[in-house]
Amino acid sequence: MFPYAIAPSILSADFARLGAEVEEVLEAGADIVHFDVMDNHYVPNLTIGPMVCKALRKYGVTAPIDVHLMVKPVDRIIGDFIEAGATYITFHPEASEHIDRSLQLIKSAGCKAGLVFNPATPLDAIKYVMDKLDMILLMSVNPGFGGQKFIPNTLQKLKEARALIDQSGLDIRLEIDGGVTVDNIAEIAKAGADTFVAGSAIFNTANYQQTITAMRNELAQVNN
Amino acid sequence: MFPYAIAPSILSADFARLGAEVEEVLEAGADIVHFDVMDNHYVPNLTIGPMVCKALRKYGVTAPIDVHLMVKPVDRIIGDFIEAGATYITFHPEASEHIDRSLQLIKSAGCKAGLVFNPATPLDAIKYVMDKLDMILLMSVNPGFGGQKFIPNTLQKLKEARALIDQSGLDIRLEIDGGVTVDNIAEIAKAGADTFVAGSAIFNTANYQQTITAMRNELAQVNN
Amino acid sequence: MFPYAIAPSILSADFARLGAEVEEVLEAGADIVHFDVMDNHYVPNLTIGPMVCKALRKYGVTAPIDVHLMVKPVDRIIGDFIEAGATYITFHPEASEHIDRSLQLIKSAGCKAGLVFNPATPLDAIKYVMDKLDMILLMSVNPGFGGQKFIPNTLQKLKEARALIDQSGLDIRLEIDGGVTVDNIAEIAKAGADTFVAGSAIFNTANYQQTITAMRNELAQVNN
Amino acid sequence: MFPYAIAPSILSADFARLGAEVEEVLEAGADIVHFDVMDNHYVPNLTIGPMVCKALRKYGVTAPIDVHLMVKPVDRIIGDFIEAGATYITFHPEASEHIDRSLQLIKSAGCKAGLVFNPATPLDAIKYVMDKLDMILLMSVNPGFGGQKFIPNTLQKLKEARALIDQSGLDIRLEIDGGVTVDNIAEIAKAGADTFVAGSAIFNTANYQQTITAMRNELAQVNN
Amino acid sequence: MFPYAIAPSILSADFARLGAEVEEVLEAGADIVHFDVMDNHYVPNLTIGPMVCKALRKYGVTAPIDVHLMVKPVDRIIGDFIEAGATYITFHPEASEHIDRSLQLIKSAGCKAGLVFNPATPLDAIKYVMDKLDMILLMSVNPGFGGQKFIPNTLQKLKEARALIDQSGLDIRLEIDGGVTVDNIAEIAKAGADTFVAGSAIFNTANYQQTITAMRNELAQVNN
Amino acid sequence: MFPYAIAPSILSADFARLGAEVEEVLEAGADIVHFDVMDNHYVPNLTIGPMVCKALRKYGVTAPIDVHLMVKPVDRIIGDFIEAGATYITFHPEASEHIDRSLQLIKSAGCKAGLVFNPATPLDAIKYVMDKLDMILLMSVNPGFGGQKFIPNTLQKLKEARALIDQSGLDIRLEIDGGVTVDNIAEIAKAGADTFVAGSAIFNTANYQQTITAMRNELAQVNN
Repeated sequence: MFPYAIAPSILSADFARLGAEVEEVLEAGADIVHFDVMDNHYVPNLTIGPMVCKALRKYGVTAPIDVHLMVKPVDRIIGDFIEAGATYITFHPEASEHIDRSLQLIKSAGCKAGLVFNPATPLDAIKYVMDKLDMILLMSVNPGFGGQKFIPNTLQKLKEARALIDQSGLDIRLEIDGGVTVDNIAEIAKAGADTFVAGSAIFNTANYQQTITAMRNELAQVNN
Repeated sequence: MFPYAIAPSILSADFARLGAEVEEVLEAGADIVHFDVMDNHYVPNLTIGPMVCKALRKYGVTAPIDVHLMVKPVDRIIGDFIEAGATYITFHPEASEHIDRSLQLIKSAGCKAGLVFNPATPLDAIKYVMDKLDMILLMSVNPGFGGQKFIPNTLQKLKEARALIDQSGLDIRLEIDGGVTVDNIAEIAKAGADTFVAGSAIFNTANYQQTITAMRNELAQVNN
Repeated sequence: MFPYAIAPSILSADFARLGAEVEEVLEAGADIVHFDVMDNHYVPNLTIGPMVCKALRKYGVTAPIDVHLMVKPVDRIIGDFIEAGATYITFHPEASEHIDRSLQLIKSAGCKAGLVFNPATPLDAIKYVMDKLDMILLMSVNPGFGGQKFIPNTLQKLKEARALIDQSGLDIRLEIDGGVTVDNIAEIAKAGADTFVAGSAIFNTANYQQTITAMRNELAQVNN
Repeated sequence: MFPYAIAPSILSADFARLGAEVEEVLEAGADIVHFDVMDNHYVPNLTIGPMVCKALRKYGVTAPIDVHLMVKPVDRIIGDFIEAGATYITFHPEASEHIDRSLQLIKSAGCKAGLVFNPATPLDAIKYVMDKLDMILLMSVNPGFGGQKFIPNTLQKLKEARALIDQSGLDIRLEIDGGVTVDNIAEIAKAGADTFVAGSAIFNTANYQQTITAMRNELAQVNN
Repeated sequence: MFPYAIAPSILSADFARLGAEVEEVLEAGADIVHFDVMDNHYVPNLTIGPMVCKALRKYGVTAPIDVHLMVKPVDRIIGDFIEAGATYITFHPEASEHIDRSLQLIKSAGCKAGLVFNPATPLDAIKYVMDKLDMILLMSVNPGFGGQKFIPNTLQKLKEARALIDQSGLDIRLEIDGGVTVDNIAEIAKAGADTFVAGSAIFNTANYQQTITAMRNELAQVNN
Repeated sequence: MFPYAIAPSILSADFARLGAEVEEVLEAGADIVHFDVMDNHYVPNLTIGPMVCKALRKYGVTAPIDVHLMVKPVDRIIGDFIEAGATYITFHPEASEHIDRSLQLIKSAGCKAGLVFNPATPLDAIKYVMDKLDMILLMSVNPGFGGQKFIPNTLQKLKEARALIDQSGLDIRLEIDGGVTVDNIAEIAKAGADTFVAGSAIFNTANYQQTITAMRNELAQVNN
């Protein structure tokens, strides 16, 4: 299992000064930059694309950038994000006709690959591609819709995903995205997650460092 | 006819410090912020969405923001851009089944509406909605593809669009986008354009003010 | 030119007693039953399909049924409406990749065929299929959206369509749909329409016969 | 488990006098009005939409209306059916990218929500949204195609669905749709169904009450 | 104007011995190999793709291969046909969002480019890309549907296309496809066509040379 | 279990002399003609359609033709392949909204039906239609993409499919497609496959008979 990692979602950052925001949140102790890409087709919203990722790299960001594709289809834009400096590229199994192929496309370029599961989506799609995964991301809210809380059923799903990863003996991150806060992060970690996306829970607080430290304190109390 | 207006396309700006870039280019003399939205479906690229527009307004940008939708369909996202503070919202006629309705949607919210024409697209779609247009935007390159030069046939199309606007007696901007530089801006103005989008021609130069001033000097020599 | 015909749109009738409603409106003097089919794809609404058309025939309706397809694509459902007893089948040119073929499909079964034009759509699509048309339908509101008024630009378009029909020397109905009332029907007739769809203007009035008679009185004063 | 309920599908009723038909079948002992919505995209047929549902309510129907959406996508039209007075709204998991979200949309408006499974579709989609379901509908024929018989494999699937519901301890209806007749209703009930859709088996008989009573008699002999 | 050219459509050839068929028809006097690509989406049929084109080149065919794309979208497969040895690549304007770009894609690889017009489609799409066209192809039947005859309205359209080409002063072939036979080829040539696609009219005859010679004799009597 | 069958994929044959190629490979000992249909939508390639299948039958091919549809949707083209003389028609479960119906469509015409599973796709879709299957085809490469090797995870999946077939007691072929060679065919047979698609492994060798014999020798050593 990976050491716990905090992955702020820049969707809640100030897009007018994104470089500085990312720099600040990394200095405040974040581990991974979570980058949410929406195309107004797979989800009813359109956010940011490869050029913004490239701009962050040019600005000097060296931390891992974890690109979550909420787009359909995925293959053409995967190439754009490889060039733009993505570290992880994850996509939804429903969004590719050829999941194994899309994973190979990401990995053949030296990027890390992952699959993302919507709240209602079963984990079946990982069975025959487990060896091509560097990350499994479970959505604990419905992507693309605002103002939602952590869906409690995800805790059970986290346990199942954790069991599958442990059985495989492979190095696969188990990431959770949606409604993660200082108050529930410990419970979520106990269910098996090791990587925690948080958007407004970090960027809407006055002091990023304080919030991230509070999250780490919660995580420190979890006995894995 | 409107006085000449320079509309830098922020697609060529530094996305890591977008607020500052926009501020600088406006202080350098730009009139309008041109905002290119691509959805990876209508064009093979994905850029920036409503949240980025909203962030610019929150940053303090008060200049007109001219949102060019290279997305299909358009109706749902029009609402998002209205809320995000857009001034102009333009779309391609091929991207809406109900062009008159989409124009009404924009205008009923108090925004200005326009239609955009790809290099090969005839101007027919304006005939019965002329009275609902605040802007006609002619593409002089193919949107969504990089590294292109101004397509010369657009000069003839500009003349036709100018004639239609003048005949109508209506206050409609005639904007041109693609391959506009200091070297050809005068010729383009002579053909009838009054609003000039320029991306790399401005943002890839060392001194925005110098470039914009050079453009204005060229325009000053045009007798309309 | 055809004698003036009134075509009540059953979209405004009471669907719980549709047979009786249609019978009443025909007895009140209506000439044609206008039947609006929406598929929730070409327009954002879903209304009624072939089974409802068939039920009207079985109920005893012998008047012409004029089926306006607001669906995309059209070819498969054209066959269903032929079987269901449609008299006219009209569709939007944007909704068929093969307009000439779709018209042939309708006519080869002995039905009458037509094309429908949205408020912003030019009339170009009729040029090479004029000889296959029995009806041209001009929308004077945007189909599929509620609460709209007659779009004045349609008057000019009616004149153009009338001229094209008269030049052709062919027997083609010129139908208008959207915002037609007792108050504007004469003006619309003067612009060239001979067939008038009216929905709420008829069905939302207490006495269908009175309304239809009022429309006919208005039409009687038009000198064609 | 719910008491057995008979849900006549109005697809087999006379659409020219739908209000009277529904009234009669309810007086004949039916419990629920089953309302089949097809959009000519998810299935190759187009039937009836929200306006017809609203007309039934206005006509005075107070029984539960159980809207089965055979449309794709589902989110926009869910709102229309909520307004139109639907009691249950069910959809196919393949027809929504965001199943959990679509269920929440239905339930947040006070309607009851359900998922529908085609003959070949596994039950996996219910695993993580069981607590948001009021109904599970198993198709025992392929929706949208005529003239089919009850597919026998559905009996095994009913047993599995029944076991899942019983394990959950939740109040979830188990509905069956397709080829249900007086002859097989008892066997179907034994496999676990509690709600029975029947179209032509009821509406194509001379006496609705006799048929429904015959069905109830069959059901009375089942020991649950 | 080009000298008259006969372009047999291999859709009517024997696909089990295609190399030999093409060789025979070229030896019989044909000038151009017409290659019809259908994708079961733009038209309701699926025919042959790039591999078959490549096989003909490998077999030794050196005559021009004229690839007519009845597919949507077109950009990705254009690259495949360039590699496969196509001489001409033509597509329907409705099948590309970015017509100018698709034409550039073909020409930048050294291939010749063209636009194809369905029987009902106006010629408007050529206006601003005339200088990028090597061929204009008019369909005189609806592509993808069997058993059709030459649509007479195409004669008038040929005259209009011929006038546009002559005005332009550019070297653009004017090709006609659908229902061309020995009996009508002269009349079609008089209307302005210089390149004649014929499928069953050639391949369903016992002696290809005789048929092609008969066509040439007809053409010899036309005074251009 | 079926005796081992070799099914050369004609995608690797010479399309210019396809009849002769198929004849040769059958004389060399092949059992089944594997026919790969791609539509440039479900996979990024377009290959051959029903007319080519029909040409093989007309050429005199009497061996089973095993049509693998890599197209979406499937229902309309299934009819074309039935007429064209297909023996087996298989499709991907993701490519049909109504899997049970598509299987019935194939079988009702007297053809044999099957489902195909991409490398990452679980076998869930067979559960409720096992009695309608004559073939299960597992892809051991991603269909539509060139230059791939046999994906090792497929061996485990073959074992699972074999177990399901054996439990069912039904006559269902278990076919494997992708990267099958003389070197790995024995291992693949041990995992449960009985029908082996091979393309370049046969057609790119100088002597088809030698290669097929070598495959048979390998298979002869497997104890089932």
